[in-house]
Amino acid sequence: MADILNVGIIGAGRIGKIHVENLARFIPQAKLEGIADITLSAEQEAWAKSLGAQVVSKNPQDLLSDASIGAVVICSSTDTHADLTIAAAAAGKHIFCEKPIDLTVSKVKAALEAVKKAGVKLQIGFNRRFDHNFKRIRDYTLAGEIGAVHLVKITSRDPAPPLPAYVAGSGGIFLDMMIHDFDMARFQAGSEITEVYAQGAVLVDPEIGKAGDVDTAIVTLQFANGAIGVIDNSRKAVYGYDQRVEVFGSKGAAQAENDLPNRVTLSNEAGVTGEKPLYFFLERYKGAFLDEMVSFVDAVLHDKPVAVKGEDGLENMYAALAAGKSLREKRPIRIDEIRSL
Amino acid sequence: MADILNVGIIGAGRIGKIHVENLARFIPQAKLEGIADITLSAEQEAWAKSLGAQVVSKNPQDLLSDASIGAVVICSSTDTHADLTIAAAAAGKHIFCEKPIDLTVSKVKAALEAVKKAGVKLQIGFNRRFDHNFKRIRDYTLAGEIGAVHLVKITSRDPAPPLPAYVAGSGGIFLDMMIHDFDMARFQAGSEITEVYAQGAVLVDPEIGKAGDVDTAIVTLQFANGAIGVIDNSRKAVYGYDQRVEVFGSKGAAQAENDLPNRVTLSNEAGVTGEKPLYFFLERYKGAFLDEMVSFVDAVLHDKPVAVKGEDGLENMYAALAAGKSLREKRPIRIDEIRSL
Amino acid sequence: MADILNVGIIGAGRIGKIHVENLARFIPQAKLEGIADITLSAEQEAWAKSLGAQVVSKNPQDLLSDASIGAVVICSSTDTHADLTIAAAAAGKHIFCEKPIDLTVSKVKAALEAVKKAGVKLQIGFNRRFDHNFKRIRDYTLAGEIGAVHLVKITSRDPAPPLPAYVAGSGGIFLDMMIHDFDMARFQAGSEITEVYAQGAVLVDPEIGKAGDVDTAIVTLQFANGAIGVIDNSRKAVYGYDQRVEVFGSKGAAQAENDLPNRVTLSNEAGVTGEKPLYFFLERYKGAFLDEMVSFVDAVLHDKPVAVKGEDGLENMYAALAAGKSLREKRPIRIDEIRSL
Amino acid sequence: MADILNVGIIGAGRIGKIHVENLARFIPQAKLEGIADITLSAEQEAWAKSLGAQVVSKNPQDLLSDASIGAVVICSSTDTHADLTIAAAAAGKHIFCEKPIDLTVSKVKAALEAVKKAGVKLQIGFNRRFDHNFKRIRDYTLAGEIGAVHLVKITSRDPAPPLPAYVAGSGGIFLDMMIHDFDMARFQAGSEITEVYAQGAVLVDPEIGKAGDVDTAIVTLQFANGAIGVIDNSRKAVYGYDQRVEVFGSKGAAQAENDLPNRVTLSNEAGVTGEKPLYFFLERYKGAFLDEMVSFVDAVLHDKPVAVKGEDGLENMYAALAAGKSLREKRPIRIDEIRSL
Repeated sequence: MADILNVGIIGAGRIGKIHVENLARFIPQAKLEGIADITLSAEQEAWAKSLGAQVVSKNPQDLLSDASIGAVVICSSTDTHADLTIAAAAAGKHIFCEKPIDLTVSKVKAALEAVKKAGVKLQIGFNRRFDHNFKRIRDYTLAGEIGAVHLVKITSRDPAPPLPAYVAGSGGIFLDMMIHDFDMARFQAGSEITEVYAQGAVLVDPEIGKAGDVDTAIVTLQFANGAIGVIDNSRKAVYGYDQRVEVFGSKGAAQAENDLPNRVTLSNEAGVTGEKPLYFFLERYKGAFLDEMVSFVDAVLHDKPVAVKGEDGLENMYAALAAGKSLREKRPIRIDEIRSL
Repeated sequence: MADILNVGIIGAGRIGKIHVENLARFIPQAKLEGIADITLSAEQEAWAKSLGAQVVSKNPQDLLSDASIGAVVICSSTDTHADLTIAAAAAGKHIFCEKPIDLTVSKVKAALEAVKKAGVKLQIGFNRRFDHNFKRIRDYTLAGEIGAVHLVKITSRDPAPPLPAYVAGSGGIFLDMMIHDFDMARFQAGSEITEVYAQGAVLVDPEIGKAGDVDTAIVTLQFANGAIGVIDNSRKAVYGYDQRVEVFGSKGAAQAENDLPNRVTLSNEAGVTGEKPLYFFLERYKGAFLDEMVSFVDAVLHDKPVAVKGEDGLENMYAALAAGKSLREKRPIRIDEIRSL
Repeated sequence: MADILNVGIIGAGRIGKIHVENLARFIPQAKLEGIADITLSAEQEAWAKSLGAQVVSKNPQDLLSDASIGAVVICSSTDTHADLTIAAAAAGKHIFCEKPIDLTVSKVKAALEAVKKAGVKLQIGFNRRFDHNFKRIRDYTLAGEIGAVHLVKITSRDPAPPLPAYVAGSGGIFLDMMIHDFDMARFQAGSEITEVYAQGAVLVDPEIGKAGDVDTAIVTLQFANGAIGVIDNSRKAVYGYDQRVEVFGSKGAAQAENDLPNRVTLSNEAGVTGEKPLYFFLERYKGAFLDEMVSFVDAVLHDKPVAVKGEDGLENMYAALAAGKSLREKRPIRIDEIRSL
Repeated sequence: MADILNVGIIGAGRIGKIHVENLARFIPQAKLEGIADITLSAEQEAWAKSLGAQVVSKNPQDLLSDASIGAVVICSSTDTHADLTIAAAAAGKHIFCEKPIDLTVSKVKAALEAVKKAGVKLQIGFNRRFDHNFKRIRDYTLAGEIGAVHLVKITSRDPAPPLPAYVAGSGGIFLDMMIHDFDMARFQAGSEITEVYAQGAVLVDPEIGKAGDVDTAIVTLQFANGAIGVIDNSRKAVYGYDQRVEVFGSKGAAQAENDLPNRVTLSNEAGVTGEKPLYFFLERYKGAFLDEMVSFVDAVLHDKPVAVKGEDGLENMYAALAAGKSLREKRPIRIDEIRSL
């Protein structure tokens, strides 16, 4: 393979822009070759060209048919992910696809099938595996510092809830928000989830309840390797984005506190006050967004396995679907029950 | 009532000794009047007298029939708690009883009934409510700093597992260990538990599994006020006694880290290392043992409600029994289901 | 020697009361035998007797002439320390004397001479050596974890300034306040101070300046073993008693943060806020006051060297006098220059 | 002025490379127009061109004579700074010059004079003022949160000493290393240093002593506004780059701890261990290097005062020279004494 990977980005929204800038500026092994966005503005076009993009179009097909492009990064709206993945695979492009591949299992399976058949690489955007904190915990576990994993605990709370309109189309808190935490849980446990039990409540915004979802949830997990775990989610932590992970085992425990904008404390008559956590995912996972793309480029160029596989996306989805079912049916749900649906 | 409360202690084992020393040395409003222990040694007798005890006996009845004694502290073996509570109530003594009152609901109810009928006060030894950290969290909540409580999270891990022989007679992890955490959860939520779901595993010591118990557990909680919660327990944290609580709500979150023996860190090539948590409950809850007794003495002398009621003991027990049932039956259990047994 | 040390306390003010209670309640090897206070009130008398004191008097001589008393603890006003030390030595009593022995070198020397001649033990009340944090740092150094000591840094700030009237008779900030830090510096460096340079300012209260003193000071230190150090003092830290020590060496550094009343943080829109340091020396050094007395009692009973010698008091005083001279003369002062005065 | 500032960089060594990459990639208001390096390699040339540089030369004059270039960044060896500053000023270019302008006062003054005469802007590379932590402390002070500043404390320790050969030509620890801390002290105090007293020792490497320098130093400071301060330096902290600042005042204190690579702690039988500080200045001040350049570009484009003036460089130098003189002569040195040399 070539020394440089030419990449085309499909969808230049919030996440797409991050990948574009990372590829254009920080990854010497990649070249930003093209950008496609169905609502491409003149401003976006100028920006894309200033970053060196050769193909700038409203049509993703223009990227797929460009022979110089070796890989595409799919950041368009969720409902297009599966079809674009299938089309990209058919065009022989390696694929980085933002999560989720789709909100239905059948379309995800179809996309994975197409990828397998085409023999291209597919990496899913579960970026948190690349977070400096969470990766450090995993490294401790892999180095044997924690011993056998007994407990995985994940706290994941957003600074502000999404609009109820968004909630309605999001697939619900488990597919939209906790899916990142299911991936983190599987990553940290080094094992698949076999069963979940979900508890949920509407405590943040009654409109979320009216939209058929919950905004606060605790889900317990059983892993295949015998470990157990728990995830808690809230749609609104007034102090900011709360992202903590703890892994406890036979030889010790590793614990990640939140990242802060600085390390200053102010001591006065009111107490000793430090900063709130970094506000939201763009700030907190800035490094992780870059590192996942570095990893993808490296996997393609040197024919290594990708760090987050299509199958990971499917497993995370099973866990999310099981959690939803558990909440509705008030009973623990085995993943196998979902898998066989 | 008098200005000073004369107290008799029944059972001078590990916990009894702590209460004796606290009453004799640190609580000016109390006078250590008598000690009864069925295995009283000469050494214990000398110690009791050196602390000013007037009645030192192998027979608890000697305390109950002493008119000068206003209250008894029951620290004898668990199987004697209910009968001694009933006898003490009949003798018109106020009662501080170590948890649990009994391992069966019927005997607990009988004891509570006797207390009610006698019109004496009964406080149960759920000392952690008096811990400086956990009390501070509750104070924040009561002061409105946290807003409405959404989530209560409790981590409670012992430094070393009990002997399998002990486990067999302990009532199991939920009645023996997590019962403290159920009390803490109810205390912090300011609400009763209505439902639990328990997950457990044998990861620390297979002998515990053979004894029919688990050594690692996660239990999720539903509270009457809408909040939800989770407790995790392990019988063995190699780094010491891990006792943390977090309460998250609409206006903020309060979080208690472990107490440490000192605040020194050592920075060297290996990193920046601080102390492990205080080793076990005698060290960690030293202040709480004193403060619960101060509170009891104050309640009796000034006819105030006790801080931890007999009914709290019963509710905690319901939660523990529900957790055990949940684990066995692999389904969430409503407390009402236990209550009506 | 006997198994139990009978102790008499001279002066039952703020510090005296602490020593009395510690001796009476927490040190089984000691017996509180007598209390003398020239302004003894009826209330103090009752309190002393309730704690078991046999001799309760306005006259210290009543303790010195009591053959059953093996040691005295001198907590009376500073101007009486030297004479009482001399009298106690003459009476063959071992002596624990609060700092300073005197504000003049000649009287200190006379007292030390008397002690030496009498062959009794003398421990000076530099209690901070027994603080759990500072002792831990020293233990790290002794264990070789820090390597050769290069730098000793001490921060020592009071929560509120003394009354200007007190300042006038106190000997000034170096003899009254920083003298504890000179002792800590010598303790941590494991070496004598050979030279100091003092910088001072009146920033807290102009009245302190009018009384001829400073309220803010930085003093740099040269130690005999080659290490260097610095102490900063302020008479007023609005956030409470700030007591930190850092020792830096060839293999690492140990650093002690302030003790806090609890380990709870509150996270809200304003930030993440923890407690202020423990308010003042009675709270912060509660354990150190007990441990220094345990150590003294042990030294007397088992004929061990005392932990803080009379000569330590003298060396600390030299450093304080040198600092005062340095401030006045705006030049570094060698301790030898003071020693030979 | 134009919307975009065309910048030429003179000297593409370690620091120069950072500025080049920042200007080329992260500062949209700047354009990397040219690079000059007297030892320009083919590799450097390719790199410069790949970043868009139009002029790539061994001769700085090629940048100064290029009319399209509005500002130069001087990162060549220290001995060339003053001459290049003078030449750049004569060519009408705005100047960002790495510290120090020169090691002699006369050449610094000549350079400042030339800059003044030419009416161009000059910013000196005291980047730490832009560090997120230290800036936050200053912001607290400016917002009145600390009240009047009483004490400024700076700890600044390198992870490893320079080679003795470097030390010889460096101007010594005060001009080479502590000069950054003098700048920080003046920045945090919001006031000029009026007097210093220096204490130094050779504790890290005897070769440094043979080169006529010290490797460990404590310098106390008097500020014009009445505040006092202290800086400690060591050439070797085995745990990494130790960069902490504390400002204490009438209303509180702000304190900056070290930045860490992640926020994970490992708890095991040995204790609770976190990461060492970021290794050295390239890691720690990465953001500060970018932000100082953003600030310079903004000052030039919008005709604002620069954040770190040429006069700041001179004042820092005076403090460093005074510290050296203080160490040699063992007495406090007033800055005026240096100023009038």
